[in-house]
Amino acid sequence: MIYLDNAATTRPSESALKKANIYLTEKYFNPSAKYRHGIGLTGELQQSREALLRAVGLKTGTVIFTSCGSEADNTAVFCHSGKGKCVTTEGEHSAVIASFKELSSRGVETALCPIDKCGKVNVEKFLSMIDERTAFVSVMHVNNETGAVNDINAIAKRVKEIAPRCIFHSDGVQALGKIPVRLSPFVDLYSVSAHKVGGLKGVGALISQKATAVHPFIFGGGQEGGLRSGTENVFGIKNFEYALTEKLQNLQGEYNRISGINKQMRARLSESGFTVISGEDASPYVLSVSAGAVRGEVLLHMLEEQGVLLGTGSACSSKDRFSRVLRACGYGEDVLDGVLRISFSQETTAEEVERATELLIIAADKLRKVMKVNVCKK
Amino acid sequence: MIYLDNAATTRPSESALKKANIYLTEKYFNPSAKYRHGIGLTGELQQSREALLRAVGLKTGTVIFTSCGSEADNTAVFCHSGKGKCVTTEGEHSAVIASFKELSSRGVETALCPIDKCGKVNVEKFLSMIDERTAFVSVMHVNNETGAVNDINAIAKRVKEIAPRCIFHSDGVQALGKIPVRLSPFVDLYSVSAHKVGGLKGVGALISQKATAVHPFIFGGGQEGGLRSGTENVFGIKNFEYALTEKLQNLQGEYNRISGINKQMRARLSESGFTVISGEDASPYVLSVSAGAVRGEVLLHMLEEQGVLLGTGSACSSKDRFSRVLRACGYGEDVLDGVLRISFSQETTAEEVERATELLIIAADKLRKVMKVNVCKK
Repeated sequence: MIYLDNAATTRPSESALKKANIYLTEKYFNPSAKYRHGIGLTGELQQSREALLRAVGLKTGTVIFTSCGSEADNTAVFCHSGKGKCVTTEGEHSAVIASFKELSSRGVETALCPIDKCGKVNVEKFLSMIDERTAFVSVMHVNNETGAVNDINAIAKRVKEIAPRCIFHSDGVQALGKIPVRLSPFVDLYSVSAHKVGGLKGVGALISQKATAVHPFIFGGGQEGGLRSGTENVFGIKNFEYALTEKLQNLQGEYNRISGINKQMRARLSESGFTVISGEDASPYVLSVSAGAVRGEVLLHMLEEQGVLLGTGSACSSKDRFSRVLRACGYGEDVLDGVLRISFSQETTAEEVERATELLIIAADKLRKVMKVNVCKK
Repeated sequence: MIYLDNAATTRPSESALKKANIYLTEKYFNPSAKYRHGIGLTGELQQSREALLRAVGLKTGTVIFTSCGSEADNTAVFCHSGKGKCVTTEGEHSAVIASFKELSSRGVETALCPIDKCGKVNVEKFLSMIDERTAFVSVMHVNNETGAVNDINAIAKRVKEIAPRCIFHSDGVQALGKIPVRLSPFVDLYSVSAHKVGGLKGVGALISQKATAVHPFIFGGGQEGGLRSGTENVFGIKNFEYALTEKLQNLQGEYNRISGINKQMRARLSESGFTVISGEDASPYVLSVSAGAVRGEVLLHMLEEQGVLLGTGSACSSKDRFSRVLRACGYGEDVLDGVLRISFSQETTAEEVERATELLIIAADKLRKVMKVNVCKK
């Protein structure tokens, strides 16, 4: 099987699982327990927090472990006190968009900034929507559908010039472990997820440089500095640390390798009549294309039959026929119908992608013949 | 090592882990993915939902998988629309108590009903606090510190006679897989947790017989019927199903066996000058005792040195010196200082408990001698 849906979830790292297994067998204790075996786990969780801070280029900060990226995003958005305007972008993950909708239904003034054809936020437009009253903004780092990279450090700096007390949040779920991340002091909150980097589903984190900004999201025993109650998922968190550490070992080398793979696939698909949606400067780990009038979902199933797994837009919102984000990019139904998202991981090989590209081109040609669709091949 | 802190967390079941391992290796997909491998997981999660419903004696209902018991409790409490009174008990887990405090800070009228010496709610007092305006009530099934069992079906029925539209929630974290659970139609919401029954930390569920009552807690991709977004923790959920199924296989037999073990330990500790806090009709899986003036924490560390792990009150709120719940039971500092919580699982053997009892008695006697404390031994 050739798995090219790594933006939806990644295959858990076997070596990280092996290393973390001790937390299922010998170290299964509750970190709140008062005996040494329990207390010790608090220190081991601290190591995971420090690893996560280092992974985003921070020396200090607070790491609030959550159950997923969506919970981290919700925790960030619901920091908002109810006073002041909230601004985000049309490219955001549904965890941010739906939370903004909820804020709006509670009477908070919210605004969505348009994105360009590649899924990047229009920075000047975004800044024009910010004013002194703006209390919270959220701009995703890497778009999960197109791979578009927003320069969050630069945007955060300019946002703070206009609204110094505003909280700046960024969803970094598709950035961590894939592109180099070095948060500037202007990025207050940053969401990450384990299962996108070889870790497990059920683990995420909100990294905070402004801990006072965060309100408790789950109330109870007071874990995570009182900001997120519930017994810590020690096994999942340690596994996250180990899986992420593996990804970071050769981040730049892998970035370059995947860039090469992406470039080749992009060129071949483009030559074969596909529209390439992802920009040239996007994260190489996500390649969004459209087969035009040939439906992406049909192609997906044809490829599936041959052992190649691809995505169509965001896995998380796959109940809608068309992608909300790609619609916001300005594409019409002629393109939206044929969308496929190909996403890579450090495990992806050039041979796999070559084979998948070939099969995809053959399948699209076959389907076009049946449908009598002509495409302009370069 | 003799592990007698199973109310804090249990050692994950090896056989359940082995069975669930396939979700880490072959079936690691995102259940929202559109290919067969993803779609199939939705059906497999459905099996887990059905298993959970069966485990609490229901044929139909909604299972909302969460990241822990605390999240399930929070989801339940924050169902409350903001209108109408909310009533709970002083015996509740901090996930309910702290959520009630948050409701109260938002202007909701809340009330806490006293509990008796064993930690059971005073039913008549509780009912006297309910009126037509009562919108939400929460009464835990089994108390996590004393094992006290509230007859939630009977209480729910009587609550509904007074306030028919009121939502009745119960925290069943310490009941599931330990005592027989058969929810009546009057119990609308029921919280459970995986890591108390041989499953993993990071998995819980809110079982609902009144799905319309539940508001979304995490907003986003619309998983869990739109009530709890975030990629489903498939491995953790299937593992929960398997671990729970094991516990249910001989629930009554194990209940009886643990009852015998509990009875013996209770008798020996009582003879040796310990105050037994847990009632005779409590869940046999929790035995709360006090060594009086001899500090529980010191005893805990003495036992730890000999390879026996015990708890002192609730692991989740262990930052307070004294247990909030046991204080509410009416105990003074003379008893509270010496509290130990011994908690069993199906893995606990009679020999282990016999040995632990012996060591505990020796340690307490030793400490009493040093402290020159006289106790009345029966």
